[in-house]
Amino acid sequence: MNAGSDRDLDIQVLAFDVFGTAVDWWTGVSGQAGEIARARGVDLDTGAFASAWRSKYAPSMDLVRRGELPWTSLDGLHRRSLDELLTEMGIAEAFDEDARQRLVRAWHQLPAWPDAADGLERLRSRYVVAALSNGGFALLTHLAKAAGLRFDCIISAELARHYKPDLEVYETAASLLDVSADQMLMVAAHRWDLEGAARAGLRTAFVHRPLEKGPSARADHPSDVSADLSASSFPELATTLGC
Amino acid sequence: MNAGSDRDLDIQVLAFDVFGTAVDWWTGVSGQAGEIARARGVDLDTGAFASAWRSKYAPSMDLVRRGELPWTSLDGLHRRSLDELLTEMGIAEAFDEDARQRLVRAWHQLPAWPDAADGLERLRSRYVVAALSNGGFALLTHLAKAAGLRFDCIISAELARHYKPDLEVYETAASLLDVSADQMLMVAAHRWDLEGAARAGLRTAFVHRPLEKGPSARADHPSDVSADLSASSFPELATTLGC
Repeated sequence: MNAGSDRDLDIQVLAFDVFGTAVDWWTGVSGQAGEIARARGVDLDTGAFASAWRSKYAPSMDLVRRGELPWTSLDGLHRRSLDELLTEMGIAEAFDEDARQRLVRAWHQLPAWPDAADGLERLRSRYVVAALSNGGFALLTHLAKAAGLRFDCIISAELARHYKPDLEVYETAASLLDVSADQMLMVAAHRWDLEGAARAGLRTAFVHRPLEKGPSARADHPSDVSADLSASSFPELATTLGC
Repeated sequence: MNAGSDRDLDIQVLAFDVFGTAVDWWTGVSGQAGEIARARGVDLDTGAFASAWRSKYAPSMDLVRRGELPWTSLDGLHRRSLDELLTEMGIAEAFDEDARQRLVRAWHQLPAWPDAADGLERLRSRYVVAALSNGGFALLTHLAKAAGLRFDCIISAELARHYKPDLEVYETAASLLDVSADQMLMVAAHRWDLEGAARAGLRTAFVHRPLEKGPSARADHPSDVSADLSASSFPELATTLGC
């Protein structure tokens, strides 16, 4: 595929992953966790805490994907893995019910990457731009609103009652937007998401977010990922797509 | 309820009906039908045509609501009633497949009422603002985008596979946005919609759109409707709600 043009494609919808791709979960969660911990007099390595919590994300979804846990929203999975993590860290007693609810809610309010809002606005001029994330419908609606990210619609894995990379999520999005799978471009910073999208027949665009796991961990790198397009920001993707 | 304040309420979500309430379907459909008819040399009373087509809307949905027709998207119902109408009017042969597809698609691109975009923007400052319509998910996404109406999310009856005023539609919206029914305010220009919303436990706001059925037909009037709030425009509603 010619990365400088989409003339050989008929892309109508851009589906954006959210956590890590459009918003900086690591900075947002570690910052809010720091405030909540300080108010309770707990000395917490907030970056390590955010990373450890996120590391439980894929395994917790896999329980649902394998049918070992009934459908549970991402809020529910976050709560489950938070309870587990606080116990493992030996700090369960420092975080009462209110603190735990606030921590789960931290995922509803995260900063956008600085280029994201402008890039989406440019891309909206030519494409239907959807959020397509494993976050719950309410969570994604709150998150996009708080971060000032304008999507034409919110599509949550909740609508398919499956988690990405299950094919049902991508297929549900294409069906709801009344396009064929290959008229949809999945935009994500994660190899596993783009591989799922490609298996469902979508086109794929990798966006490199080197800091998405914080400064000490390695994020997916363009050399790791086989995608139709690759960009280092949403505006760069907009330029590639002629917006 | 004190119509000048929502202090006695805990409204978090405003759910907006779309056809007639946020957009002017009569002007939009009659205008586009006129263009399509003229291109085929058909002399059409476009206002009467739009009105007659819309008059088949509720009966066609009722077939689905009563289980006499399997789930069919609004595009599908529009096509069904269009075919019926063109035959009734004796002009079926003048409208080929392409013309019929264009007519169905006309409902995806309708002008917003002049006050709608500004009103929504004010209301978004304080509330989660959702579209909640019987239009399909793709249709509503296209319509909001084309009309420049910014909703925080699109919720279609399609997600419930029920049509308003079935309670499932309002309940699905509350569930997706993680609020209780009485934390949601249904905003509509139609008595039947507000009555359904009230039965589902939602709060209700009537917006009077005297021209929604064109200049010759009577639209629902405030005196016909029992709602918690009443306004003549979205900005007036915003003022009432303190935005």
